[in-house]
Amino acid sequence: MRVLILGGDGYLGWPTAMDFAAAGHEVTAVDNYLRRRIAEATDSEPLIATPSLSERAHLFKAVSGHSIEVRIADLSVPEEMFEVVRESMPEVIIHYAEQPSAPYSMRGFKEARETLRNNLDVTFNCIWAVMEIVPDAHIVKLGTMGEYGTPNIDIEEGWIDIEHKGRTDRFLFPRAAGSFYHTTKVLDTDMLWFYVRLHGLRVTDLMQGPVYGLSTPQAEMDPKLCPHFNYDDIFGTVVNRFLVQAVAGMPLTVYGEGGQKRGYLNLQDTLQCVRLAAENPAREGELRIFNQLTEVFSVNELAERVKRAGEGLGLDVKIKSIPNPRKELEEHYYNPVFSGLTDLGLEPHYLTDDMVADMLEKVIANKERIRPERIMPRVKWS
Amino acid sequence: MRVLILGGDGYLGWPTAMDFAAAGHEVTAVDNYLRRRIAEATDSEPLIATPSLSERAHLFKAVSGHSIEVRIADLSVPEEMFEVVRESMPEVIIHYAEQPSAPYSMRGFKEARETLRNNLDVTFNCIWAVMEIVPDAHIVKLGTMGEYGTPNIDIEEGWIDIEHKGRTDRFLFPRAAGSFYHTTKVLDTDMLWFYVRLHGLRVTDLMQGPVYGLSTPQAEMDPKLCPHFNYDDIFGTVVNRFLVQAVAGMPLTVYGEGGQKRGYLNLQDTLQCVRLAAENPAREGELRIFNQLTEVFSVNELAERVKRAGEGLGLDVKIKSIPNPRKELEEHYYNPVFSGLTDLGLEPHYLTDDMVADMLEKVIANKERIRPERIMPRVKWS
Repeated sequence: MRVLILGGDGYLGWPTAMDFAAAGHEVTAVDNYLRRRIAEATDSEPLIATPSLSERAHLFKAVSGHSIEVRIADLSVPEEMFEVVRESMPEVIIHYAEQPSAPYSMRGFKEARETLRNNLDVTFNCIWAVMEIVPDAHIVKLGTMGEYGTPNIDIEEGWIDIEHKGRTDRFLFPRAAGSFYHTTKVLDTDMLWFYVRLHGLRVTDLMQGPVYGLSTPQAEMDPKLCPHFNYDDIFGTVVNRFLVQAVAGMPLTVYGEGGQKRGYLNLQDTLQCVRLAAENPAREGELRIFNQLTEVFSVNELAERVKRAGEGLGLDVKIKSIPNPRKELEEHYYNPVFSGLTDLGLEPHYLTDDMVADMLEKVIANKERIRPERIMPRVKWS
Repeated sequence: MRVLILGGDGYLGWPTAMDFAAAGHEVTAVDNYLRRRIAEATDSEPLIATPSLSERAHLFKAVSGHSIEVRIADLSVPEEMFEVVRESMPEVIIHYAEQPSAPYSMRGFKEARETLRNNLDVTFNCIWAVMEIVPDAHIVKLGTMGEYGTPNIDIEEGWIDIEHKGRTDRFLFPRAAGSFYHTTKVLDTDMLWFYVRLHGLRVTDLMQGPVYGLSTPQAEMDPKLCPHFNYDDIFGTVVNRFLVQAVAGMPLTVYGEGGQKRGYLNLQDTLQCVRLAAENPAREGELRIFNQLTEVFSVNELAERVKRAGEGLGLDVKIKSIPNPRKELEEHYYNPVFSGLTDLGLEPHYLTDDMVADMLEKVIANKERIRPERIMPRVKWS
């Protein structure tokens, strides 16, 4: 299958490129290094520096024999998107090419505008390149569970049947995101849904929860092939923050009450999900939505897991609540449905104590690189 | 009250500016003439040429004694939006500054992109200018009933209580628009709702149906003060098309079956609604949504009304179905709630035979200006 990966340099993009290539697909990975520039500008670089996309593709070819075609292009520029699609003629496009940081999008006008522009323009250009060049191609779009926010009802997989005053209809599940970044993903879904209705596109929108994990089978072949590991307040998720704090001897900082529940998954499960979606495409005129997570837990539960696993390795781990820099419910109902990907064949890797210990060991091996000043929140929501 | 009108040169913007000025408010009207440029580029100019915004403000001052401050600025450019808001320090902002044509947004990539960019950027810049300069100002945003599409359940005023698996929550009413222009308005509402939740803005989103009417009390003072009357396929609504076809001796062209129902209102009622919203502002942290229409009828019913009124004036009026250039349901359920503005004091003007005859007479007086080649659909949805 000809696979085009937009945002191929990212935390998910690069492992996805290797995964598809290793499975025998013909892979092109595109990126404009926006995330690298933001990381440099905000002092948020990963724990271990990662070589450029071209260097990694070269290295991957040497160790695995599999090729990944690399293009450095700004896909928010229509001509660049159209050229990349025309050259690669993809059967499936995996679209990760978005500014992915919630705190960055909440930093100020400039950052919010950059997030809006980049994310909507890339999605819009992608839609049009597909309509005009490869109308039968399947777009696999990375959405986020954050689009839904934390409603007081069960979160269905994208769609809900509403009965109202004795009549019924089926609608997109209501969404109310907690950051401007997450809101741009709501807008992406709205745009995709419009063009699916009008022009019969095939789209899968993967509503993904926070992803953790430092390794994949391909990344294990050489440390330079590992995905970015960010532990800063801009790109680092709560899992990475806790891992680094446990290793650095800092208390695990829970934002507010810590009752915030989210649906998490392992990086290896993201790879499975994306490949299952790609190999089982949406039908013509279908916006197929999956909730992409494997287990739900609260921030407090996560802190306890990291503390337990850390203590198992002889670390002295404390937990401390700090004022919440975000505006979010700290105690709430949360019950998402997530059976669609399991039905396609997903075999989950859970966040067991062994899994946490394995990640902690990788961080311990790089302990001297930790820059503690990157960890605490530098952006407040209001 | 200091009132800033974004899109002050438009069909609604200019009459709104006169209305607020005549009521004693301090009015600034801003426009970048985008609509005039699109009309020139697509051969879609109004039946009667309208003087520039500055000329009309000058004339209005001469005949009424009321001032309207005019600024020509591109509000999609952040600096220009911020400067206009800083200079006028509005208590209320009436936001009409959007590319308003559904067919134009469906013409191709360039036009869709221009619509996305202009509409979202102006709304985004407006939100930020309010947050940073006049955080207590009330944004009155023109939305559209087209955001909802034609669902199979009653359309509530913006919000719906959903009971699902024994639990309940309140959400934005689901939306699925029929053109890309209407979709950009869905995205506007999503963005406004995010910043209302996060920063406590005061916003009223007016979900307006198609507006008809050629006159207002102020416009009657001089023909040069009349609003644009577009009868072309780009900016003309179905009401205007039928009026012009009846006068030109062409059959009234019903798209497809003609069972398409929409909620209509008179231009004078738009003015009432906008002023009622402005003079009764939304609360801090409230996204208040009104459905702005006064009556619902189908395209076939509208054609019959125009035929009846036209025959009353001695015109020979035929009705003819043509293939629908749009992708829309031609027979569907349609039952919108619209009590909010009535509760605030709206006194509707209905589309009576007298009202139709009055509009027909105004068109008859300009019959020689009609350019028939502008009337038939030049843009197809797919």
